[in-house]
Amino acid sequence: MFPPPYGAPGGLTQRLRESCAERWDAYCWHPFVQGLAEGTLPLPAFRRYLVQDWLFLVQFARAKALAAFKAESLEALRGKASGLNALLDEMRMHLRYCEAWGLSEAEVLRETEAPETVCYTRWVLDRGMAGDILDLEVALAPCTIGYGEIALRIAAHPGRRRQGNPYESWIETYSAEGYQSFARAAAERMDALGLSHGGEARFAALSATFAEAARLECAFWQMGLDAAP
Amino acid sequence: MFPPPYGAPGGLTQRLRESCAERWDAYCWHPFVQGLAEGTLPLPAFRRYLVQDWLFLVQFARAKALAAFKAESLEALRGKASGLNALLDEMRMHLRYCEAWGLSEAEVLRETEAPETVCYTRWVLDRGMAGDILDLEVALAPCTIGYGEIALRIAAHPGRRRQGNPYESWIETYSAEGYQSFARAAAERMDALGLSHGGEARFAALSATFAEAARLECAFWQMGLDAAP
Amino acid sequence: MFPPPYGAPGGLTQRLRESCAERWDAYCWHPFVQGLAEGTLPLPAFRRYLVQDWLFLVQFARAKALAAFKAESLEALRGKASGLNALLDEMRMHLRYCEAWGLSEAEVLRETEAPETVCYTRWVLDRGMAGDILDLEVALAPCTIGYGEIALRIAAHPGRRRQGNPYESWIETYSAEGYQSFARAAAERMDALGLSHGGEARFAALSATFAEAARLECAFWQMGLDAAP
Amino acid sequence: MFPPPYGAPGGLTQRLRESCAERWDAYCWHPFVQGLAEGTLPLPAFRRYLVQDWLFLVQFARAKALAAFKAESLEALRGKASGLNALLDEMRMHLRYCEAWGLSEAEVLRETEAPETVCYTRWVLDRGMAGDILDLEVALAPCTIGYGEIALRIAAHPGRRRQGNPYESWIETYSAEGYQSFARAAAERMDALGLSHGGEARFAALSATFAEAARLECAFWQMGLDAAP
Repeated sequence: MFPPPYGAPGGLTQRLRESCAERWDAYCWHPFVQGLAEGTLPLPAFRRYLVQDWLFLVQFARAKALAAFKAESLEALRGKASGLNALLDEMRMHLRYCEAWGLSEAEVLRETEAPETVCYTRWVLDRGMAGDILDLEVALAPCTIGYGEIALRIAAHPGRRRQGNPYESWIETYSAEGYQSFARAAAERMDALGLSHGGEARFAALSATFAEAARLECAFWQMGLDAAP
Repeated sequence: MFPPPYGAPGGLTQRLRESCAERWDAYCWHPFVQGLAEGTLPLPAFRRYLVQDWLFLVQFARAKALAAFKAESLEALRGKASGLNALLDEMRMHLRYCEAWGLSEAEVLRETEAPETVCYTRWVLDRGMAGDILDLEVALAPCTIGYGEIALRIAAHPGRRRQGNPYESWIETYSAEGYQSFARAAAERMDALGLSHGGEARFAALSATFAEAARLECAFWQMGLDAAP
Repeated sequence: MFPPPYGAPGGLTQRLRESCAERWDAYCWHPFVQGLAEGTLPLPAFRRYLVQDWLFLVQFARAKALAAFKAESLEALRGKASGLNALLDEMRMHLRYCEAWGLSEAEVLRETEAPETVCYTRWVLDRGMAGDILDLEVALAPCTIGYGEIALRIAAHPGRRRQGNPYESWIETYSAEGYQSFARAAAERMDALGLSHGGEARFAALSATFAEAARLECAFWQMGLDAAP
Repeated sequence: MFPPPYGAPGGLTQRLRESCAERWDAYCWHPFVQGLAEGTLPLPAFRRYLVQDWLFLVQFARAKALAAFKAESLEALRGKASGLNALLDEMRMHLRYCEAWGLSEAEVLRETEAPETVCYTRWVLDRGMAGDILDLEVALAPCTIGYGEIALRIAAHPGRRRQGNPYESWIETYSAEGYQSFARAAAERMDALGLSHGGEARFAALSATFAEAARLECAFWQMGLDAAP
């Protein structure tokens, strides 16, 4: 198994990842991801993903706002609020990025959510509403830290195509230090929340949440792939 | 189009139904429904539906609890609370009903939610969290009043098979006066909420909610159907 | 200190109670309570309390509905839903009880919430929204188990007036086996939630919640007392 | 009555303000406010207010985060998120402002919430949870637009003391164009939400919310005043 890139050994992040190792691999090394690494992913699959990722980010922003509301301290609220604003900035870049792939802003905004997008995002929001800040952050983690790990896996992939890989810019975004330090910080925070919020005693429930999020991430990749003829 | 069986002419319920007439028909007369009416639905499809309907009801009960929390008055809270308890009673019957179809309670409880079940239920819960009691009830309505209308459509279907139709008990449940008066009351309440909570001014948003719920109901039938070989 | 009547030694309930012993005593043996025990409480104070208690119960019912929504399992949801319905039944009795004290139903329903009532109830609801089911139940506990303990303290009070005590019916309600077994069950459930939901690791936060609820209960008694000339 | 400074004539903001004119005046021209205008407010009253205002802002930030979660569109979410970040910046300034009044940051952070602070903030959060974005914004409005109007009333007050008024910096903050344009924008947004979200049909409920918020603002001023010997 790929070595866990984030969080302390024995910390909540690594334990959650280990508790659903198979599913985690299925998500982090989904055929969609391999296609990105090797530059073989059909363009329609990537474009489908890009548009749905936009719709995903809209709901992800709502989840960050919810996390700010539920934050356990003013300091945590500040962290969530600045995370929310960073995300909203990235979303502007996402639209520009879509344009580079021939998807006009109008086209993206017109699109409706795929079932896989509704499923994943509303499930996260409900975990957040029903539970506390730890439940919410565990539901969000597979996205945040997963994308970081995926970029590292791609970088370590012997079959990775660098030259002429149309998806190089995507890979660079998530392997860049900017994103990697963001993922590391998210894992650190989750480890800390695990200690302060009873991660040990709640492990069974948290692990079920983490695994379900990984399953829904898998389905999200698959939705992209299914768009290719 | 099938004549609207519930709510006052010009009231919110009927207006919502009309605003997405095609999708409403697609839901209320889905091939799954026709299969129930004509007794031709493959058994695996029905069993798949039954199990997922159980998992749906668990989340539906949570949505009713949320509606009680959000109710606009003590009287409304009482109505929601008694609705919740009626639902919890029906759920016990649902398990017994499953047993009659060869699905043991243990089997049902062991099952995991299909994506279509997660998608629909968490989307409803999120509409309820984000909006007010009217948003929540509009999101719930296609289930409540839809099942009543479906039973009436089946009853009016020339090709309906009565004798030896394995699904007769299902049809009877929803065409019985007990369920029909429940559906009528739900429509009346939604009409009243439409007046008191600005249904007219909010129609575009409410109609989008209603239509999305109908789309997710369709997907739920389809999920059942897809289980048949 | 009065011996802890509910929960297991070393369990979450008893530990929370011990962690704010002084404040707990201030609540459970508030001058208002002494006045009930000794039959010396001025009637206007009791009537003020009765009316505000009604308004409190309306919000308490909403908190129970929220707990049903947040419940960690279907079994827990069932428990919360039946608790909600029991509460709604008791509320009808509460109105009749008010009438026995010369407060007509119309009078009670016309009343507006005192600041102390708004303060306590909305704070509980927010703890419930922000946190998980354990946070919510800990915020509710001082009311539930507190009233049971108060009745026991009154019963053990050497200066208790039995004959001709106008508040005997109130005391009987809460010292009756019906309420006492309800309080015991609430403590048992909280002890269990403490184990499953990380009560140990979260103790500092939970204890702050419990102590704040006790403070707000104190203010509620005081609000009653302040109504006496 | 002071001429309404924000919102369009006949718009939701002005109608809400008119519907509770007396209470609105009681809030906007509370003895505390007069004391600010005339420079006669006892220092302990102002210091008490400053510290509790800090604790109020912490919860207000949570309410803004909740509004971002509930926002009716991505554009509205962006607006709320940037409002939240502006508020968090102002909170840093608030701490520095407190220091200028001899209240060290440590002192402020150590303070516990007054009942009036708990009451107002948790009530707003509950209105926001129970209702939709319009309910939440109406609950928040008396603070936002009220402070702007208060500054204008002070400016128009014949008895205003300018020279040597210790509270001149407070007055300047809220009469400055920065705050005034913020208040105008809030009123414009509320007018627009009134149109899109059924403000007309929901007026009775919204007006009750607005009036209750004004009552709780009054109690907040009074809490400050009560700190003076």
